[in-house]
Amino acid sequence: MQSIQQSFKVDFSYKVFFTRYLFSPDNHVFRDYLLSQASGALIKKLLFVVDDGVAASHPQLISQISAYLQHITSFDLAGDVILVPGGEACKNDQALFYSLVDKIDEQRIDRHSFLVAIGGGAVLDLAGMVAAVSHRGVRHIRIPTTVLSQNDSGVGVKNGINYKGKKNFLGTFAPPAAVFNDIHFLTTLQPEDWRAGISEAVKVALIRDAAFFEWLEEHADVLVNGDLPLMQELVYRCAALHVAHIGGGGDPFESGSSRPLDFGHWSAHKLEQLTGFVLRHGEAVSVGIALDSVYTSLLGWIDETVAWRIVRLLHRFRLPVYHPLLEEQQGTPSPVLKGLQEFREHLGGRLTICLLKKIGQGAEVHEIDETLLNKAVELLKENYATK
Amino acid sequence: MQSIQQSFKVDFSYKVFFTRYLFSPDNHVFRDYLLSQASGALIKKLLFVVDDGVAASHPQLISQISAYLQHITSFDLAGDVILVPGGEACKNDQALFYSLVDKIDEQRIDRHSFLVAIGGGAVLDLAGMVAAVSHRGVRHIRIPTTVLSQNDSGVGVKNGINYKGKKNFLGTFAPPAAVFNDIHFLTTLQPEDWRAGISEAVKVALIRDAAFFEWLEEHADVLVNGDLPLMQELVYRCAALHVAHIGGGGDPFESGSSRPLDFGHWSAHKLEQLTGFVLRHGEAVSVGIALDSVYTSLLGWIDETVAWRIVRLLHRFRLPVYHPLLEEQQGTPSPVLKGLQEFREHLGGRLTICLLKKIGQGAEVHEIDETLLNKAVELLKENYATK
Ligand SMILES: NC(=O)c1ccc[n+]([C@@H]2O[C@H](COP(=O)([O-])OP(=O)(O)OC[C@H]3O[C@@H](n4cnc5c(N)ncnc54)[C@H](O)[C@@H]3O)[C@@H](O)[C@H]2O)c1
Ligand SMILES: NC(=O)c1ccc[n+]([C@@H]2O[C@H](COP(=O)([O-])OP(=O)(O)OC[C@H]3O[C@@H](n4cnc5c(N)ncnc54)[C@H](O)[C@@H]3O)[C@@H](O)[C@H]2O)c1
Ligand SMILES: [Zn+2]
Ligand SMILES: [Zn+2]
Repeated sequence: MQSIQQSFKVDFSYKVFFTRYLFSPDNHVFRDYLLSQASGALIKKLLFVVDDGVAASHPQLISQISAYLQHITSFDLAGDVILVPGGEACKNDQALFYSLVDKIDEQRIDRHSFLVAIGGGAVLDLAGMVAAVSHRGVRHIRIPTTVLSQNDSGVGVKNGINYKGKKNFLGTFAPPAAVFNDIHFLTTLQPEDWRAGISEAVKVALIRDAAFFEWLEEHADVLVNGDLPLMQELVYRCAALHVAHIGGGGDPFESGSSRPLDFGHWSAHKLEQLTGFVLRHGEAVSVGIALDSVYTSLLGWIDETVAWRIVRLLHRFRLPVYHPLLEEQQGTPSPVLKGLQEFREHLGGRLTICLLKKIGQGAEVHEIDETLLNKAVELLKENYATK
Repeated sequence: MQSIQQSFKVDFSYKVFFTRYLFSPDNHVFRDYLLSQASGALIKKLLFVVDDGVAASHPQLISQISAYLQHITSFDLAGDVILVPGGEACKNDQALFYSLVDKIDEQRIDRHSFLVAIGGGAVLDLAGMVAAVSHRGVRHIRIPTTVLSQNDSGVGVKNGINYKGKKNFLGTFAPPAAVFNDIHFLTTLQPEDWRAGISEAVKVALIRDAAFFEWLEEHADVLVNGDLPLMQELVYRCAALHVAHIGGGGDPFESGSSRPLDFGHWSAHKLEQLTGFVLRHGEAVSVGIALDSVYTSLLGWIDETVAWRIVRLLHRFRLPVYHPLLEEQQGTPSPVLKGLQEFREHLGGRLTICLLKKIGQGAEVHEIDETLLNKAVELLKENYATK
């Protein structure tokens, strides 16, 4: 019997730029990038998709974009800037997805043109999916506008939309062409969104960088009150850790079962879904981190005091560390705990959950002891349910 | 201004197996592959999607599959085998696409389970797309059943569905987990489908392998009459050339504008669309090869006699080498020629068309002389319109 072995490598690379006032006339960051992508006399197109929450808070943005692009002759704005509703709802809306595909078609966006998305993680996930599957992939530039998307989702390689209420059921791995983090956008966030993104920083610090965790402890109170320079540092450090993990972790497209960046996420995903996404991703992750940290201490892997030190930090960031859905519901097991099974399925293969070896280092387990987990829930309830 | 550079490589590899009677109890090829994918006590699932044209011609197939799998304890058939309509229509049917996504969900196919598709290129393209976007990519095994899919589309890295009549408007690059070419399937093809797939062999021979071209000339009459051993050799050689090109060409996911494997395809895509897919892909490609070969000779790159030698070979395979839509339609330019612009857009960037340096070697151009192209159409009409 004959066979042919196919094997090849594909290189992926992109830059994450950190700047302020990206579309101000004297800011050259975006222009320089575009010029690096120009090819001769060919005029490339830019189709902009903007989160309406961002547009509302930055009323000059759209006119700034067109003014900025007017001087870049090798790129053209393709039609009007498209506004889409910000937040999770946009990932549930199949008609919206296809309306963006239609725009790609109408505006003749080809594989050398760009879809540029400006917004929170939800809009970026939707636009990224549209770009990834249109013409088998048009180039995609991300301009994240929330703490979460600047320090985590926007700098990574995933996109996704929800399907029949199942979070990210449809999506792909598709690295962006470039990412532009403009810190100014963060000044108009709701306080809840400002804080929610911080939980991903706590997460990545816990599994990768003890010094960063200590830095977060040191600056928690100033950070939570809206200090922009400190947030800039947080975003940079957290984004750098995510980028390094994805590029250096050996499995950027997650073909194995190991996903250390998902520390605290198995319960978070389920909590988001059960609350109909009233709980923000970052808030749910905060609960998940608290739960898995206390659970880790009950396993004896970290000291109890360490677990509570983690919970306390989240609490100082005014992030939730407990949720009633973690508990038994009138005699039936907690619906969140059932999420463990779904998490395994979404990943496939063996159940693999990241816990902590110590602050700054993750470690994996392949089973969860439900009695201890329930105990962790109880302890969190006792200590934090009413705080 | 700060920036972070992300860069990583992703390895892709898969095998293309050549066999006969794949699901016969004594054929170990598929079993051995599955066992190589088993992991411990975990039972993995196989969701089968089968082209109804194949099922109709191979009425024992479905029971053979379940019998075959019964002895492989680490894999389970997920629910019933799903039959989908074969042929291009399945790529136009959005409801069918989502019904397959629903099956992934209902049957809890995770990222370590497999979607196995058996069928012609159309069913494989649809199923490949479903697998690629569900859970950001479930593993996908292809069992191509036509000449075209065994020697070309099924061994490559692309999938796609049509959107609003636009061919492959939605799709991704997603290498399969494995490919199984069972020559027996070809015995039940319609003669037109048997022949249509041969045009991809002529194509790849022309741009990569002069000896293969001569082999095709030598065996044309026997091949066209249904000789299975010769077809097996054709499929193997053609598949090997495609696999080598994709893996060794330096751009497997086609990020550049150069696509030599698309020799003869710019007009073919348009012809398929304009005829509402009445013209088969392979038939349209045959017309496209004839057109671009004669055009190449008019450019003076190859001798006139060489061009007609190519056209004659296609004709001996009883493939069309001319189509009325290539001509002016009542004073307006040929609608196929307008396809040139769409082809550029689908690829993006600069127009890049593969022509021939000589038999066995392609060469690219970035513009097409419409007068010469019309002249090529006329010559083909004169010589072959009535044959
Ligand atoms: N792709 C990934 O790898 C990945 C990783 C983590 C999370 N996510 C996804 O990200 C989404 C959450 O993203 P998010 O936390 O950024 O929130 P979000 O996108 O849901 O946005 C929250 C709200 O903030 C508004 N907004 C955004 N930027 C603003 C600004 N600068 N000023 C004022 N308002 C603004 C939006 O309009 C929205 O109403 C979820 O769908 C989650 O699944 C994706
Ligand atoms: N992904 C790629 O790289 C790529 C490349 C080339 C073509 N394609 C696509 O492939 C499709 C064409 O595929 P195709 O030529 O294989 O034809 P097809 O899939 O359209 O099938 C043709 C007909 O043959 C029937 N059939 C299939 N196998 C059979 C068998 N063994 N016995 C009897 N009947 C059988 C089908 O039911 C159908 O009616 C097009 O959609 C084209 O765009 C994809
Ligand atoms: Zn997260
Ligand atoms: Zn083809």
